[in-house]
Amino acid sequence: MGMTAFDEATAVTPEDDGCYGARLDERFAIVSGDGTVGAVNGGVLMAIVLRAVLDSSPHPDPVAMSAHFLRVPRPEPAQVRVSWLKQGNTAATARAALVQDGAEVLDTTVTTGRLAEPGDGGLSWTGEPPVLPPVEECTGFADLAGSSRRAGYAGQVDLRLDPATSGWLRGEPHGVPEMRGYFQLREERRPDAYLLALAVDALPPVVFGITRAGWSPTVELTWHMRGLPAPGLLRVAARSRHVSGGWFDEESEVWDSAGRLVAQSRQIARVGRGRGGPAA
Amino acid sequence: MGMTAFDEATAVTPEDDGCYGARLDERFAIVSGDGTVGAVNGGVLMAIVLRAVLDSSPHPDPVAMSAHFLRVPRPEPAQVRVSWLKQGNTAATARAALVQDGAEVLDTTVTTGRLAEPGDGGLSWTGEPPVLPPVEECTGFADLAGSSRRAGYAGQVDLRLDPATSGWLRGEPHGVPEMRGYFQLREERRPDAYLLALAVDALPPVVFGITRAGWSPTVELTWHMRGLPAPGLLRVAARSRHVSGGWFDEESEVWDSAGRLVAQSRQIARVGRGRGGPAA
Repeated sequence: MGMTAFDEATAVTPEDDGCYGARLDERFAIVSGDGTVGAVNGGVLMAIVLRAVLDSSPHPDPVAMSAHFLRVPRPEPAQVRVSWLKQGNTAATARAALVQDGAEVLDTTVTTGRLAEPGDGGLSWTGEPPVLPPVEECTGFADLAGSSRRAGYAGQVDLRLDPATSGWLRGEPHGVPEMRGYFQLREERRPDAYLLALAVDALPPVVFGITRAGWSPTVELTWHMRGLPAPGLLRVAARSRHVSGGWFDEESEVWDSAGRLVAQSRQIARVGRGRGGPAA
Repeated sequence: MGMTAFDEATAVTPEDDGCYGARLDERFAIVSGDGTVGAVNGGVLMAIVLRAVLDSSPHPDPVAMSAHFLRVPRPEPAQVRVSWLKQGNTAATARAALVQDGAEVLDTTVTTGRLAEPGDGGLSWTGEPPVLPPVEECTGFADLAGSSRRAGYAGQVDLRLDPATSGWLRGEPHGVPEMRGYFQLREERRPDAYLLALAVDALPPVVFGITRAGWSPTVELTWHMRGLPAPGLLRVAARSRHVSGGWFDEESEVWDSAGRLVAQSRQIARVGRGRGGPAA
């Protein structure tokens, strides 16, 4: 089986001194209603940086990744620059930046460690999982509207929204800043750290639940990998706790097909201007 | 009125090239049962770094601060090194590190912006606040046990735990990884961004709610300032969603005396070894 578009789009090539070559892939850019190719999806950028970091990490799992989004990424060549700040027995921390034309697009700090295999024992406690209807009753996001929604990023991912949180697609927001849905790539691919980097920000902005806003630019996003995901569909649930002064938080959880919490994130973003919806 | 110990402990002195002198203050170190002076409180470290960042920031409020804890901070001189990655109209981002003896103790990235004044209008939505009993019914953390609990950090802060989450102090964890309480300095001081940096990690580790563990070292903590706090007591509520393989997350919210959500944080930490309690 060949590489998936996602693996091609997140590939990095080692250069020297902790530098890696990359190319931001148009196939994961947001395409607007008129066909204009916009920014490349932020989760793909995080996956690219993560590949470079894990290439030289003494530990296998990204326990914490903080990402500050600085400039609009363009579908062109880029470079990842990795420098290690600490390499300890339990945790190692690197700073890694994604650079285009000499300017930082994304600044990240990544701490790696080793996560437990399921059933490893030891102290274990997990909160209640999100409740979603069966996937057959969920709304295929990209299938609902015109062909533009199948172009770019929307054509790569298979996102099925809980109908309780998809009213905004019909211009009827459900009144609460929450989104829930099932997530996988359209191509068959087992979930791993890179796909989780995409999954944590895969849902439409939670503010679409309360207002017809334009797309919301992420300012900062930190996510934690919490478990090694089982094959199959991921469930993603996101909510906001506070929207004010043009800023909102969005926290998401990703659960695997075996019912385990495998990733958590929180981001701070700006409420977008203009009309709501993926083609705005 | 003179400076509070907290203001003295978090003061920075501009040097050149974005460098600032600081001194990690023993008065905010964790003191163990036998009187040994341990690490300086992580919130104080974040406040020190934040003072250096805000000194040269084009925007007044720390909208997002990601901090990766690399080495044990000692109560000795330190340096903060600030470099700006972007200074935009809405947001500016700096990288800032706290250094001792040439090694990074704390690596942070801070994005600043401007928060709304209360009543500024615009889209606004907030989730349910935490429920706490009146402060008179809460447990004065540092007053409960021997004199060691009044030394160092514990002697500077006035933390009153919700009795529903303080059973671990009697060796009877309440069975859920949650903590709630009221927080202020013992000295009178109005809450601001620096005090919020302390407040987001002010509660005892949430895992004390389910196990008798030792003190839990924070590996990474990201917090967001969400509002300008009113004078008075802060309410802090923290919970974990997942404890596994020696790692746990802790997410906290800080609400001000006017009932507004003013800060949010999430950290990833290691479950501590040894006996539970602040003197362990």
